Amino acid sequence: MIDEPNEFKAVSESVVRVRYQETDQMGRVYHGNYFTWFEVGRTDFFRSMGLPYTFFENRGIWLPVVEADCKYKGFARYDDLVTIRTVLTGISPAKIKFAYRAIVDNETTVALGVTSHAFVNRTGRAVNLAKTDPELWQKIMEALV
Amino acid sequence: MIDEPNEFKAVSESVVRVRYQETDQMGRVYHGNYFTWFEVGRTDFFRSMGLPYTFFENRGIWLPVVEADCKYKGFARYDDLVTIRTVLTGISPAKIKFAYRAIVDNETTVALGVTSHAFVNRTGRAVNLAKTDPELWQKIMEALV
Amino acid sequence: MIDEPNEFKAVSESVVRVRYQETDQMGRVYHGNYFTWFEVGRTDFFRSMGLPYTFFENRGIWLPVVEADCKYKGFARYDDLVTIRTVLTGISPAKIKFAYRAIVDNETTVALGVTSHAFVNRTGRAVNLAKTDPELWQKIMEALV
Amino acid sequence: MIDEPNEFKAVSESVVRVRYQETDQMGRVYHGNYFTWFEVGRTDFFRSMGLPYTFFENRGIWLPVVEADCKYKGFARYDDLVTIRTVLTGISPAKIKFAYRAIVDNETTVALGVTSHAFVNRTGRAVNLAKTDPELWQKIMEALV
Repeated sequence: MIDEPNEFKAVSESVVRVRYQETDQMGRVYHGNYFTWFEVGRTDFFRSMGLPYTFFENRGIWLPVVEADCKYKGFARYDDLVTIRTVLTGISPAKIKFAYRAIVDNETTVALGVTSHAFVNRTGRAVNLAKTDPELWQKIMEALV
Repeated sequence: MIDEPNEFKAVSESVVRVRYQETDQMGRVYHGNYFTWFEVGRTDFFRSMGLPYTFFENRGIWLPVVEADCKYKGFARYDDLVTIRTVLTGISPAKIKFAYRAIVDNETTVALGVTSHAFVNRTGRAVNLAKTDPELWQKIMEALV
Repeated sequence: MIDEPNEFKAVSESVVRVRYQETDQMGRVYHGNYFTWFEVGRTDFFRSMGLPYTFFENRGIWLPVVEADCKYKGFARYDDLVTIRTVLTGISPAKIKFAYRAIVDNETTVALGVTSHAFVNRTGRAVNLAKTDPELWQKIMEALV
Repeated sequence: MIDEPNEFKAVSESVVRVRYQETDQMGRVYHGNYFTWFEVGRTDFFRSMGLPYTFFENRGIWLPVVEADCKYKGFARYDDLVTIRTVLTGISPAKIKFAYRAIVDNETTVALGVTSHAFVNRTGRAVNLAKTDPELWQKIMEALV
């Protein structure tokens, strides 16, 4: 497994504006919502690679989350502009991993996250992508190098 | 279309406890979350009829929302126990309608809602349920009378 | 109450990209999430007027939703770009009303909504904004004309 | 810091029924929603101790999440009954930690989570609870032993 953060310059940035719906009565963004923002980052990452995530699903490949972690260093508030920096940190024919940084006002890191995903087929069974869909695997490899 | 609220005594009650996630920075439940509670009420209504909504979907019938309205009379807070009273207010082979009342602490009505739903098939096309699935239509009629 | 949709050209447009989190197992955006998008539209509307909603709250004025309605004409899917057109449809010192249109791919209207809001103070009590905060009321009037 | 899972028998169980709103187009519960369920478990845990979380906030003590992790072993579906088992795994005057297990149909573990929380005051500053509110700290200690 390729597991070294910056081996390939696989980084993308997304910006979300905090919605009122995302706040809680502490006056902060509810902690669970950062995982939705990480998903936004991941979606943009795949698009920026030229391989939108819809393309995966249309070919019968899903990437369910098998692990999700977040460390909170501060917090975002309603109407803040939050940059989500998404980095591919590992990929194998079985798995893909990302790290995320959420930054308020282009300067304050408020959260650091990671997610791991398995490649699965329509029935939810884990697959070796290089064998199950070698063309897609090839496209990913080409996009990354 | 049968469209008179109490023609059949089709009422069910559900209780939800307000989650922190459901609050916003006003210290109240975010207005959009009441529609999720109405869905909880609807799900319980179908189950109490002996026809869980999963039964509909397993037969290839979906009930997407075509209209949803809510009037807010007050508000619920974190940790409140909220009763959702769900009433069937109309049904035809094309459509089904519900009304909802959200009540805090068994005494204060905080919201009144209505939703309308179409019967659609797997492809999303509107159907006449009495023709498309007469057995299911018959079951509904029997459960209601 | 000024209650005629186009008396003042008070319109703004927002674009949201559908998040995976916003979908449900029907493969569509969950109906309740349109209300969050309308909130995004409203937030952008206030900002485009030069009066961000945070400005209201910082002065001790809140605009809780007292009514919210949505008619669904179609549906948005994951990764769709959805334009939210927000129109101010009425304003008085007690209340403000908006209408919304959600448009997929710049051509298909998938939802039409309306929300009404009361002006309330920190304690949640309804106020006459022209009396409670005449400066803010004046700013709104100037921004609209 | 007391950091051994079963030193005190501090366990509670909550049951949630999966809402349609919580599903995504994979036909599973969206991964981020488990963190909301863990919050439900935590809320019930505090209540079962005789110290509802509202009691903390009313005294000016908040417990924001500083770390949240989840490993997904399976998935929950719409209408499933999910048991959330919440265990206190560590407490000090600065911090409190929980572990969670989400179990479908009383037999299948679908997720394992942990959260860490800091004790903070109204201004969001971290506090030593034993010094800032010795009475509350004493109550917690008594409830746990």
